[in-house]
Amino acid sequence: MPSTLPPPPDPPAPPPSPEATVRRAPGRARYDAPAVHAVLDAGFVAHVGIADGDDPTVIPMVYARDGDRLLLHGSVASRLMRHGAVGFPVCVAVTHVDGLVLARSAFHHSVNYRSVVVRGVATKVTDPEAVAAGFARLVDHVAPGRSEVVRAPDRAEARQTMLLEVPLDDASVKVRTGPPIDDERDLELPVWAGVVPLPVVPAEPVPAEDLHPGAGAPPAHVTHP
Amino acid sequence: MPSTLPPPPDPPAPPPSPEATVRRAPGRARYDAPAVHAVLDAGFVAHVGIADGDDPTVIPMVYARDGDRLLLHGSVASRLMRHGAVGFPVCVAVTHVDGLVLARSAFHHSVNYRSVVVRGVATKVTDPEAVAAGFARLVDHVAPGRSEVVRAPDRAEARQTMLLEVPLDDASVKVRTGPPIDDERDLELPVWAGVVPLPVVPAEPVPAEDLHPGAGAPPAHVTHP
Repeated sequence: MPSTLPPPPDPPAPPPSPEATVRRAPGRARYDAPAVHAVLDAGFVAHVGIADGDDPTVIPMVYARDGDRLLLHGSVASRLMRHGAVGFPVCVAVTHVDGLVLARSAFHHSVNYRSVVVRGVATKVTDPEAVAAGFARLVDHVAPGRSEVVRAPDRAEARQTMLLEVPLDDASVKVRTGPPIDDERDLELPVWAGVVPLPVVPAEPVPAEDLHPGAGAPPAHVTHP
Repeated sequence: MPSTLPPPPDPPAPPPSPEATVRRAPGRARYDAPAVHAVLDAGFVAHVGIADGDDPTVIPMVYARDGDRLLLHGSVASRLMRHGAVGFPVCVAVTHVDGLVLARSAFHHSVNYRSVVVRGVATKVTDPEAVAAGFARLVDHVAPGRSEVVRAPDRAEARQTMLLEVPLDDASVKVRTGPPIDDERDLELPVWAGVVPLPVVPAEPVPAEDLHPGAGAPPAHVTHP
């Protein structure tokens, strides 16, 4: 899961819509597909927002990027999925917290992060072959190649799961990197300032207790997720 | 930042509202304050959802827990904060991804996580002393004791920042731990299955280049965040 973004295009890509335009610290924003893809590809849990009148709901969900669309899946019994018999507007946020930024003043404390916000209409994928391909993509997004070695969903499982897609054409990326940016006047304060990096470091895989003797060692998608 | 939850009360706390009731996998849900606090205290970035008609917006924000309320802060210029001259409904989700759960079937793949979802009305904190205390709490939530060693916000900085509070009385926790739960029929498959733990491991702090010579070594809130 890469932690760096590709260099921005020149000239930079413009915001795809007024809604997608980053208003706070616009210098940290990007709208080009390579940046959107890089942030999405570095994670697998999104926070999906839906609205019901003025009542918001945010649900953490597993996602996959499949080309220029986002795939989300969940139980047909879930709140969000019952929402989704027809298309409905969503706002999907994926955030990687890269570090704590500790400044000499309370005001300039910050966080190093990479985040993407996608707005769009989520629609249900209904074609059985497209659903099967989508389920495989979800497994392969977190563990490349794994869909080919595990049992695919049977009919009953497929019926219990709903697959949604959201186009990626209305997305913004925001990134902060680097040290604290303190006021000149605060540089005289004898206070430690800097960044505490907060990387996710995959630990030793824990095999299931009832592992089949023929299962062998953990594959690359387990040891290098 | 602890990764375990206190034992549940006996009998378990009931859901505080129909909206807060976890519908999917209700056996993984808890509603007691110690569980809510434990999950909130283990992080500092929340995904805050607001609704505008049927149009949802999700914004990653820094938060702090202060007793039985959540504090959020942001620029007065931001979308959410402009929303907030009067109270408005929010849904705040905090999620810690603890591991990838790799099963023998695509269907039983899962994620180990701790998440909390808070629903409530966000209101602006206006009393200057309460605002100052709230800003200090935000700094101390991520770096205990730090508010006393850094420069507090001056008037101009305080004017640029808005502080919101959300009560924690309508919150739910959901937790998954442990190995994959495979179907009996799949245990014969010679496929590696298990958990890949994904802990956040703070790395060596990176001091600012222009650190004051009297700043000394990084304090405990830096070396043990």
